[in-house]
Amino acid sequence: MATVEWDSAAAAVRLIDQTKLPHEETYVVCRTSAEIAAAIRDMVVRGAPAIGAAAAYGTAFAAREGRLAEGAALIRAARPTARDLFWAVELVERAADPLEEAHRITRTTVNACKAMGRHGALLLPHDARVVTICNTGALATVDYGTGLGVIRAAHEAGKRPFVYVMETRPRAQGARLTTWELRKLGIPHRLIADSAIGLLIQRAMADAGISGADRVCANGDVVNKVGTYPLALLCREHGVPFYVAAPTSTIDPATPDGASVRIEERPAAEVTTFAPPETDAWNPAFDVTPARLVTALITEHGVREGAAV
Amino acid sequence: MATVEWDSAAAAVRLIDQTKLPHEETYVVCRTSAEIAAAIRDMVVRGAPAIGAAAAYGTAFAAREGRLAEGAALIRAARPTARDLFWAVELVERAADPLEEAHRITRTTVNACKAMGRHGALLLPHDARVVTICNTGALATVDYGTGLGVIRAAHEAGKRPFVYVMETRPRAQGARLTTWELRKLGIPHRLIADSAIGLLIQRAMADAGISGADRVCANGDVVNKVGTYPLALLCREHGVPFYVAAPTSTIDPATPDGASVRIEERPAAEVTTFAPPETDAWNPAFDVTPARLVTALITEHGVREGAAV
Repeated sequence: MATVEWDSAAAAVRLIDQTKLPHEETYVVCRTSAEIAAAIRDMVVRGAPAIGAAAAYGTAFAAREGRLAEGAALIRAARPTARDLFWAVELVERAADPLEEAHRITRTTVNACKAMGRHGALLLPHDARVVTICNTGALATVDYGTGLGVIRAAHEAGKRPFVYVMETRPRAQGARLTTWELRKLGIPHRLIADSAIGLLIQRAMADAGISGADRVCANGDVVNKVGTYPLALLCREHGVPFYVAAPTSTIDPATPDGASVRIEERPAAEVTTFAPPETDAWNPAFDVTPARLVTALITEHGVREGAAV
Repeated sequence: MATVEWDSAAAAVRLIDQTKLPHEETYVVCRTSAEIAAAIRDMVVRGAPAIGAAAAYGTAFAAREGRLAEGAALIRAARPTARDLFWAVELVERAADPLEEAHRITRTTVNACKAMGRHGALLLPHDARVVTICNTGALATVDYGTGLGVIRAAHEAGKRPFVYVMETRPRAQGARLTTWELRKLGIPHRLIADSAIGLLIQRAMADAGISGADRVCANGDVVNKVGTYPLALLCREHGVPFYVAAPTSTIDPATPDGASVRIEERPAAEVTTFAPPETDAWNPAFDVTPARLVTALITEHGVREGAAV
């Protein structure tokens, strides 16, 4: 599976089209910074670390096109929330060899995920029943995953995790992508409506909640897929640990806290799937989980308990 | 709109088919207790008070068929959670004139909704932004509504409520039915994904949460559409009042608390809309909002603040 794959013969990036999964496994080939920006904007590629890798190649393309500043600006404007995007663009802008830097960022991301998996797997009991939101697997991260990487590492270490997958409306990344990855990995799971987390946790059916992050603020607040905050709040209410797995590239020391983050609002049409024509909708893509609700932050460097980053 | 309408010429009940709304406005005519039981089971009619009215006519049909006990048992088995169903069947079973009793129950329900609306509307500020789950309008209650009845009464009293409508996956009663009713009533509203309640309440965009109930337990716990508990918990966390509107027919003194309620689990196929084939799902229809999270219970008799029923 090529979430973000360099094709050296074509000097292009191949992206699996995540808007078409799980029903079609098709690929989009990007050769220009504008094509990468469009793929990020249209969510052909999504998930903070995968967006970072794609943005790195897009910035390298901008350098190749002889319009580094313009191309980098286009990519920065594609989606506002994922910290990894801005981190990757900046690293490539400053690099002597932009393409080599994009390769390095991509390798670094994969290695960070595997390290997070090793650290995080130790937190899960042998038969952990874990509830997770959105998709935080290989599709979100070039390979392996953040939150799902922790579950995968536990599975590979011989534990027997069971996953409750939140559907994750409106774009259903949980229903479409996480179930698809878990099936390929042979990890047992059941899909739930997002609203079912209340009863699930109330009836002691989950041993842990786990998510990735789009941005971790300086004070430890976590900006992640809309719905993460209700999950974390329910976990706290019932004494269930709530873990966030994110590479350090997702941590943004320049963002003091969640209240100062601009939350991306996406088109109403994503939400009005079942509604009468002309219904208006409010469609924020993210919410803020206060640092105090995060039992531990899992990065490639280890597990940090409590709020402070 | 005939949610549950008696046709005296045909001696039958006409139900608007709520599984087809908002795209088709079609009707189902029931002449037997078995047809009523099927309509309740298949959610042609849904919403606790509307189920109660339909169950009342179904029991009257069972009497007319000369198999009262059998027909009543069929209706009781149709859906397990709504208190109103059991209440209505029992009243009709005991009545000297079953059909007249079904008429009386239906009238009582409509009057109770209008009284709840009058009482509840006083709780809402003039420009209240209210978040609501599922459908608690005329479709759920023969006429007027419980939670939506309160909003409607505020609107009719000259206030200017604005409604955030939770989609209410998996069956999308909010997206399909509540938006449809609000448009007919001319009350401004926006649809949201269920998971967006976290950011909505976090960013102080709602002045109140309001729901109906499928069963109110003796200790004041509220069994209602899955997702109600996360909404109520978020409201409490942010100091936003959370109101439940339900007629006294929904209160069940015989159920001590929410933990003792059997929660209906519905088919996985309702949840797997966007998932790969063969994905398994857990699909509970209700959850339990602890009494301490309910700011006030609104019944036809008035507003009772705090937990105790």
